[in-house]
Amino acid sequence: MSKKSEAKADPNESADNIKITAILEAAQKRFSHFGLSKTTMGEIASDMGISKASLYYYFPDKDRLFMAVIIKEQEAFEKCVSDMILKPVKSAAKLKQFVGFQLDFFKRLLSLGKFNHMPVSELSKPFGEKLRIRHFNIEKELISKILKAGIANKEFSRFDVEAYTEMFASGISGFRALMIKDSNYNLTAEDYKVVECRMKLFTDIFIKAISK
Amino acid sequence: MSKKSEAKADPNESADNIKITAILEAAQKRFSHFGLSKTTMGEIASDMGISKASLYYYFPDKDRLFMAVIIKEQEAFEKCVSDMILKPVKSAAKLKQFVGFQLDFFKRLLSLGKFNHMPVSELSKPFGEKLRIRHFNIEKELISKILKAGIANKEFSRFDVEAYTEMFASGISGFRALMIKDSNYNLTAEDYKVVECRMKLFTDIFIKAISK
Repeated sequence: MSKKSEAKADPNESADNIKITAILEAAQKRFSHFGLSKTTMGEIASDMGISKASLYYYFPDKDRLFMAVIIKEQEAFEKCVSDMILKPVKSAAKLKQFVGFQLDFFKRLLSLGKFNHMPVSELSKPFGEKLRIRHFNIEKELISKILKAGIANKEFSRFDVEAYTEMFASGISGFRALMIKDSNYNLTAEDYKVVECRMKLFTDIFIKAISK
Repeated sequence: MSKKSEAKADPNESADNIKITAILEAAQKRFSHFGLSKTTMGEIASDMGISKASLYYYFPDKDRLFMAVIIKEQEAFEKCVSDMILKPVKSAAKLKQFVGFQLDFFKRLLSLGKFNHMPVSELSKPFGEKLRIRHFNIEKELISKILKAGIANKEFSRFDVEAYTEMFASGISGFRALMIKDSNYNLTAEDYKVVECRMKLFTDIFIKAISK
């Protein structure tokens, strides 16, 4: 049984958390340099100067560790957006910044996964699927907040926030999904640029349509 | 060698064309009822009252026959849009109708493939890939025509037609790609409705942004 699933009152909990944070950082570095398939658990343990047994104590396999890194990335993205939303900036600018963060996040995930060898979507189903849905729902919540604030401050006209949020969030995800499909997980810098252009123009048009 | 690849001057050519058209129709019926994987070449031959050998004379395998049916669907879609574009209707209405045709086309492809068993994208690569790119380019041409006409008749404001066309076409495809990914080729009527809503709202917003 891994430490993570033990009861909360454990006095070693904070020591464990420090260890887990360190493992995630080491794994993140390895994955983003070499990708998922070219990284071994032994290399991550060695980077940290700990034994493989010690690493496996916290993460039973590489897929779980990879997923934990993805969750960390998702949480970082969500925190970035949540902080940005609080700033005294126009809602249109916030929406643009949201898409900028999305692009960075997409780039980071791609570099972590080096999707060309083993797509994230292929591993740990349905665990990966749950992660994706959870993240998509959080994205929608964040977009919805930006849109509502824009309506409240009279920057945007009135519209069906739920439907617009759903369309905008899935539009952004759709550009990504399409590019991954088109490039068969082999995205070049050029492909990334194309996605960026599409997303930005989409955002501009969206803002234009809802602005007063 | 199949008849199709013989020289053009062949006096049997038109008889062959009639036969091929009949095969495509029979195959289309079978595929759309039972899907790709649940249809056999024997059943198609039997539907037509011809021998399997006779069917294989025209199509060396089921994948090729399926691809020929897909091409037929693509051409029908392209013809529908091309004819519609010529009508004396507002460009905004044409853009909406384009998306309506897209939705019907998507539905037809889904029913033909019964994607849950063997996704079209998985068979006959890179042949299927070429087909898709060819179709995407034709879609862009058609969208571009509608947009240019809308600018010419002052219905739309001036904008970078190429960039807008590229974004609009990939936006529409992205919604499809995302839904196929989300549903893992198991689209329900509900899923289809969601795609429809997203595409229509996207189109409305796009039109609003470019209209004068």
